[in-house]
Amino acid sequence: MASTRKLYSKYKEQMQQIADIRYAAAVLQWDQETYMPARSIGHRARQIATLSETAHKLFTAKKTGQLLETLAGSGDLSEEERKNIELSLYDYNKLKKLPATFVRAMSEAVSKSYQYWAHAKAANSFETFEDPLDKLIHLKRREASQLGWEGHPYNALLNDYERGCTVSFLDAAFSGLRPPLSALLSSIARQPQVDNAFLQKHYPRELQWQFGLEIIKKLGFDFEAGRQDISEHPFTTSFSSTDVRVTTRISENDFSNMCWSCIHETGHALYEQGLPAEEYGLPLGEYSSLSIHESQSRLWENNVGRSQGFWQHHFPLLLTYFPEQLGSTDPVHFYKAINRVQASLIRTEADELTYHFHVMIRYELEKGLIEGSVKTHDIPAFWNELYEKYLGIGVPDDRNGCLQDVHWSHGSFGYFPTYSLGSLYAAQFYDAALKQIPGLEQDLQNGNTTPLLAWLREQVHQHGRKWTSDELCKNITGESLNSVYFLEYAAKKYHNIYNFTD
Amino acid sequence: MASTRKLYSKYKEQMQQIADIRYAAAVLQWDQETYMPARSIGHRARQIATLSETAHKLFTAKKTGQLLETLAGSGDLSEEERKNIELSLYDYNKLKKLPATFVRAMSEAVSKSYQYWAHAKAANSFETFEDPLDKLIHLKRREASQLGWEGHPYNALLNDYERGCTVSFLDAAFSGLRPPLSALLSSIARQPQVDNAFLQKHYPRELQWQFGLEIIKKLGFDFEAGRQDISEHPFTTSFSSTDVRVTTRISENDFSNMCWSCIHETGHALYEQGLPAEEYGLPLGEYSSLSIHESQSRLWENNVGRSQGFWQHHFPLLLTYFPEQLGSTDPVHFYKAINRVQASLIRTEADELTYHFHVMIRYELEKGLIEGSVKTHDIPAFWNELYEKYLGIGVPDDRNGCLQDVHWSHGSFGYFPTYSLGSLYAAQFYDAALKQIPGLEQDLQNGNTTPLLAWLREQVHQHGRKWTSDELCKNITGESLNSVYFLEYAAKKYHNIYNFTD
Repeated sequence: MASTRKLYSKYKEQMQQIADIRYAAAVLQWDQETYMPARSIGHRARQIATLSETAHKLFTAKKTGQLLETLAGSGDLSEEERKNIELSLYDYNKLKKLPATFVRAMSEAVSKSYQYWAHAKAANSFETFEDPLDKLIHLKRREASQLGWEGHPYNALLNDYERGCTVSFLDAAFSGLRPPLSALLSSIARQPQVDNAFLQKHYPRELQWQFGLEIIKKLGFDFEAGRQDISEHPFTTSFSSTDVRVTTRISENDFSNMCWSCIHETGHALYEQGLPAEEYGLPLGEYSSLSIHESQSRLWENNVGRSQGFWQHHFPLLLTYFPEQLGSTDPVHFYKAINRVQASLIRTEADELTYHFHVMIRYELEKGLIEGSVKTHDIPAFWNELYEKYLGIGVPDDRNGCLQDVHWSHGSFGYFPTYSLGSLYAAQFYDAALKQIPGLEQDLQNGNTTPLLAWLREQVHQHGRKWTSDELCKNITGESLNSVYFLEYAAKKYHNIYNFTD
Repeated sequence: MASTRKLYSKYKEQMQQIADIRYAAAVLQWDQETYMPARSIGHRARQIATLSETAHKLFTAKKTGQLLETLAGSGDLSEEERKNIELSLYDYNKLKKLPATFVRAMSEAVSKSYQYWAHAKAANSFETFEDPLDKLIHLKRREASQLGWEGHPYNALLNDYERGCTVSFLDAAFSGLRPPLSALLSSIARQPQVDNAFLQKHYPRELQWQFGLEIIKKLGFDFEAGRQDISEHPFTTSFSSTDVRVTTRISENDFSNMCWSCIHETGHALYEQGLPAEEYGLPLGEYSSLSIHESQSRLWENNVGRSQGFWQHHFPLLLTYFPEQLGSTDPVHFYKAINRVQASLIRTEADELTYHFHVMIRYELEKGLIEGSVKTHDIPAFWNELYEKYLGIGVPDDRNGCLQDVHWSHGSFGYFPTYSLGSLYAAQFYDAALKQIPGLEQDLQNGNTTPLLAWLREQVHQHGRKWTSDELCKNITGESLNSVYFLEYAAKKYHNIYNFTD
């Protein structure tokens, strides 16, 4: 018993020190995307690479494996401790397949390609990004083969964000989603469209910034344990549950851009701020999976942040910021306008229905890139073809096309599908919340999000990585992921907005 | 030969990876003092501590020592390579005396005590800072005994900032400086004083910020390889020569505060941006010593930034920012006002003459704290007594007294004396610059600081740590540090400003 205690302490100390180094790398990445001066990219890339390599070496050292094996065989652990060991051992067995030199090379390639991506986007030229991206894709293919896979090499990468997620699962999920979504979109297309042109008026930068801060504070973001900054592409990162950073971007002629990216990232941030602080550096101090992470961001962004009740309360506040821009509209019109369904170019600005097609396009592309059937050079053509096929729109240029997302420059291949899964989980969780929290809709109409946050803290956040996506979903809703919740939510919402019945 | 090449490459790679980790710690420290949310302090302290400990362990590993010894015995090295090895070996032999656990404890204590200091200063209460400071002082005393010393334990700490610097050297230097400085101060005190009240008018924050940025850009600060932010106490830090960060603070009722701290930190930053990039992570890529570092900041702040020529050119620019505040003054009056000699409470705002007494007070206090003759609890009393003794002024509270400087909270004991040494070096270097750069004074009057920066790059910056302070001083001026240059510079300047002859 005494010996197990000592070993567990040793395990905890080692994990926490490795976490320190990983979080330090995250600070450097955050800095790179917010404040770092341009010429620093080379040195910064190697600094992050050294931290990644150092953390990887420490974690995949043989003696870490031995310690984990010993502890896994011990009976003297609490349920939480056993779970930590089990998950660390899973990570260990996965990560030890990657050589430290490979981790370093990947890290350097990612840091540098982020800068190339930012330049390429600014210059509206895929060509600028093509070489570093190609290098990254080759590294990702190598990673897939090092990690090993069954069925499809892309599975190895999907598994990194969503344990157990596969191409066959996603193919089926998307195939199931497409027909009812398309049918709903067709019905909507036949209805008269609400005017949302006022969202493209001039909304001054500073006022948008202030409104964003006020909204995320109201949602429960703890500014004593986090902050918001500006970056090229909005993101959330975390260096512990007491230091969670969100970023946003502001377009002066598009109010939506800032507003719902703020709410989306706050959904991520509330999850991170709600993770158990005492499990710092251990699996139970981490999030469950990326689809659960996205369930939190999408739930706040859409189920809450694009709901009628939410804006019934917040529209008057918004009006105090932008009386000229919004003086001739009202809460109901505003609600309908921000939910206008329309095929568009930019994923982060898409409505809740067409959004899934943006994800499917990226999914198909990534699958092709990783299996080798699509060449890096052909990304723009393939991208544009898919936007025509799925959304019926022409892509005018790369900035509004294949360069819009930061993810590939981060080496994140296999991430996008979790956005769709997250939306499906969000709808299912929100359905459960409506059933389990008395008066939730009235609360939101009163601007009171505290009960919902408390419920999410209890149901999701506090458990960290204790449960898989599926286990969590069953615990909360009594069943596995079921897209019917999203489809019912969507049907009800849009029938109401567009005033039609099927 | 081939083998030496291989070993040197290995050495370089190891040093650069250790530097990556140290610079990462510096990024986390910078973030802590600029943007970090309040509740993150505990986790941040341990993150920095882990990086410090990791870097220390890697550097002091036996195999590092063996590699250095082998290379030191090899004849196949260039002069620069030999110098790198010699300096790394010196560092190795010094740092291996400190156990990794001690380095970790010191790092954690420093991070936490910074936050306590900031709170204590805001609350104007030394009591809040007393315990963490006391802990830190005990750690510093332990550090001194671990490093070893002759003559005085404070020597071990002085040596950390200025190799070879000792209590007996400083006692003699300050004793030599006091009588002529006091005599000059007495003469000045008998003259009519220039009115400088306009410096305390209302100078709006944003305009000060913009002016600060414009000035440091004019001085040659490269914003592609650095940036400026706001912090509680101005500082410069560097994560490579391509990422050098300065901070400033702005007081709306005191223009001087921002202006000369900007110029001071820019002096530091120009040195860091001028270090040889190809020596990243190696001794020759580092600065020579802290007194040389301070020679750069003090030279730009005072010899340039408080000169008549500099403001003859820049006053019209300043006037465009603050026409109301400065409309009734002129360049000559401005020059005299910013150089008004007056015993004051705050070191960073002191004139060039009384400045040295601020340093001597801290020196005496630190010496007492490290040798144990002064207790932490008695710092405020001792501080106030010394301000009365040396500067003849009463200290109204701790915020304007012993809590004003950030240094102790950083664990920096032995740093302050380098400010005085830096001023002396600055005067001596500037004297050489005037002799060696044709038309320098005219250049400055024309707002052209490029020739001076080029000269400093050539004489000081590019050499990194190749030369000690003394060697550098001899190379540049033909002799060792000689306070006569400062005293002559000061006499000439203040005789002119106060219009008297002795």
